Amino acid sequence: MSRVFNFSAGPAALPEPVLRQCAAEMLDWHGSGMSVMEMSHRGPQFIAIAQEAEALLRELLAVPANYKVLFMQGGAIGENAIVPMNLLRGKTRIDFVDTGAWSQKSLQEAGKYGEAHVAASSAATGYDRVPPRADWQLDPDAAYVHICANETIGGVEYFFDPDVGAVPLVADMSSNLLSRPVDVSKYGLIYGGAQKNIGPSGLTIVIVRDDLIGQALPCTPSAFDYKTVADAESMYNTPPTWAIYVAGLVFRWIKDRGGLQAMEAHNRAKAAVLYDYLDATDFYRSPVQRDCRSLMNVPFHLKDKALDAAFLKGAEARGLVQLKGHRVVGGMRASIYNAMPIEGVHALVDWMQAFEREHR
Amino acid sequence: MSRVFNFSAGPAALPEPVLRQCAAEMLDWHGSGMSVMEMSHRGPQFIAIAQEAEALLRELLAVPANYKVLFMQGGAIGENAIVPMNLLRGKTRIDFVDTGAWSQKSLQEAGKYGEAHVAASSAATGYDRVPPRADWQLDPDAAYVHICANETIGGVEYFFDPDVGAVPLVADMSSNLLSRPVDVSKYGLIYGGAQKNIGPSGLTIVIVRDDLIGQALPCTPSAFDYKTVADAESMYNTPPTWAIYVAGLVFRWIKDRGGLQAMEAHNRAKAAVLYDYLDATDFYRSPVQRDCRSLMNVPFHLKDKALDAAFLKGAEARGLVQLKGHRVVGGMRASIYNAMPIEGVHALVDWMQAFEREHR
Repeated sequence: MSRVFNFSAGPAALPEPVLRQCAAEMLDWHGSGMSVMEMSHRGPQFIAIAQEAEALLRELLAVPANYKVLFMQGGAIGENAIVPMNLLRGKTRIDFVDTGAWSQKSLQEAGKYGEAHVAASSAATGYDRVPPRADWQLDPDAAYVHICANETIGGVEYFFDPDVGAVPLVADMSSNLLSRPVDVSKYGLIYGGAQKNIGPSGLTIVIVRDDLIGQALPCTPSAFDYKTVADAESMYNTPPTWAIYVAGLVFRWIKDRGGLQAMEAHNRAKAAVLYDYLDATDFYRSPVQRDCRSLMNVPFHLKDKALDAAFLKGAEARGLVQLKGHRVVGGMRASIYNAMPIEGVHALVDWMQAFEREHR
Repeated sequence: MSRVFNFSAGPAALPEPVLRQCAAEMLDWHGSGMSVMEMSHRGPQFIAIAQEAEALLRELLAVPANYKVLFMQGGAIGENAIVPMNLLRGKTRIDFVDTGAWSQKSLQEAGKYGEAHVAASSAATGYDRVPPRADWQLDPDAAYVHICANETIGGVEYFFDPDVGAVPLVADMSSNLLSRPVDVSKYGLIYGGAQKNIGPSGLTIVIVRDDLIGQALPCTPSAFDYKTVADAESMYNTPPTWAIYVAGLVFRWIKDRGGLQAMEAHNRAKAAVLYDYLDATDFYRSPVQRDCRSLMNVPFHLKDKALDAAFLKGAEARGLVQLKGHRVVGGMRASIYNAMPIEGVHALVDWMQAFEREHR
């Protein structure tokens, strides 16, 4: 068996110790004689697994007591509809900050339920930055303000918690949740698909302030009404039990390595290796303004895109896989989530340097 | 390691060879250097996995070419809303056949979107049967007729495909899909959560006739609009990749054992062992009419419910687990899906006999 360095944007690399534990416990979890996949979600074993996962997530993020943690399904794309269904609360307008493909997707979906308004956009500069807070045109009567905290495709990340006054701030954190500490109290709602820093796809994490729950639109499916889900402790419908189990193992792995402060240090060190090299050469180029460069998803372009295929082929031969950029933006993208070791980033930069020498 | 006989109603026992393969491939799927959980859903490896799973499912069920197979999320409870959102098609009335807890749940949820009408019910006889087709009061202008093909809690199963004329027939087959052959062409739509005969929870299977797709209500989330999902081959949002992989292994296991004819023979043999014993004693009792008794979920009651706790405790000590009946109906429930070997049913009947001798 030979493991690769997997730069996939998601589903993405998981910590190897977590995978080893999944394999070891597959047929018999803790002497139960069952796989976690075979357990009733209402049985004592799985309830313990789910409660521990939630407790660890709350501890890692220091989630305040007046927030619910919900384990849901449908991914961030499902949540793009579920959030407005739950959070319009009799209002009509939602303010969006448009920083690229994912905030666009959220905005378009929300338009089915309310009046989705672009409060700020960096479209004019090719989505290379977060629009400065001073330029946002916010309506104080909006139901909420929506941001995408990290644009997985464009590689643009927020490094501040925007102050939007009394209006709840909603953040799609699919691709940077758990990569570093976040002050949850600054947000009304945080959501994300699990398949980046958390676990397998098919699990959605929602962290929502109590007072925003309970006013869903009448057309909201019960399984996606935060009140129904919260009242049933995420067991109104059968939850994705395996994904919750794996997420719990990942939370434990993060905690054992020092929590989110340690993750941030690790992620900043990895990103620096890559960005420092990108800034030191003109053979490759980062399309993102320096103060908004994502620590998680590093898109870059070769000077000559005719070399893209050769670059990818050589990378693959070195066990550096899933580096192709999203079709919307082209080029390359190195996703370097928590589970990517710094050795993987060094191996990538080594290959980038070798390729540059060969093709300069 | 000691495996138990797991009678959980779902998530439920999986075939042991499938679990062994999951463990063996956990860190390196087919020389890819990755776990299936780590693969991009858009990469060639996972696309091959998903396509094979769909092809096997189509083969097992002989799904006609004019039906789409969709891999979705949210479970049957989510689908209880998603079906009317997609299938009302400008009509208002939906006819429900009420056979117990799950058809009730479907009916209540559908009432958010249309006029949910009870066309027939066995409530008056304690949900002990399927109401005879001749008694159904159907509206020829209904959007569709909904049945629950197997009531997981009540243990009532349909052994006929109801003829409802030109109106599409919709069946929740969560707990009997893949237990025996089904003539898909008799149905407009079949849906089910995976966590019985298919795979882990978090995956929903939808099999829907082409002509019913494309008229979803405007409030339908894109991720749950059958048209969006079908057009994107179940990859509009990131699918539950691990669950699809496991389902594919289960489909292969079913095929290798002889397909659905073989499953039916196996399931009828297992159910006969249990029902024959229930009919031969008055110490235990089946609450269901003989011609509607589920092959999958066998609820039964002890003559004296004061003995329930002792029965369950003794069963557990023998490695016969998750036998407690649903809280709504009490008593016991033995769920004997495809993955339950006949040895498990014999072991259960042995224990029932021993307990009876001791407490008669």
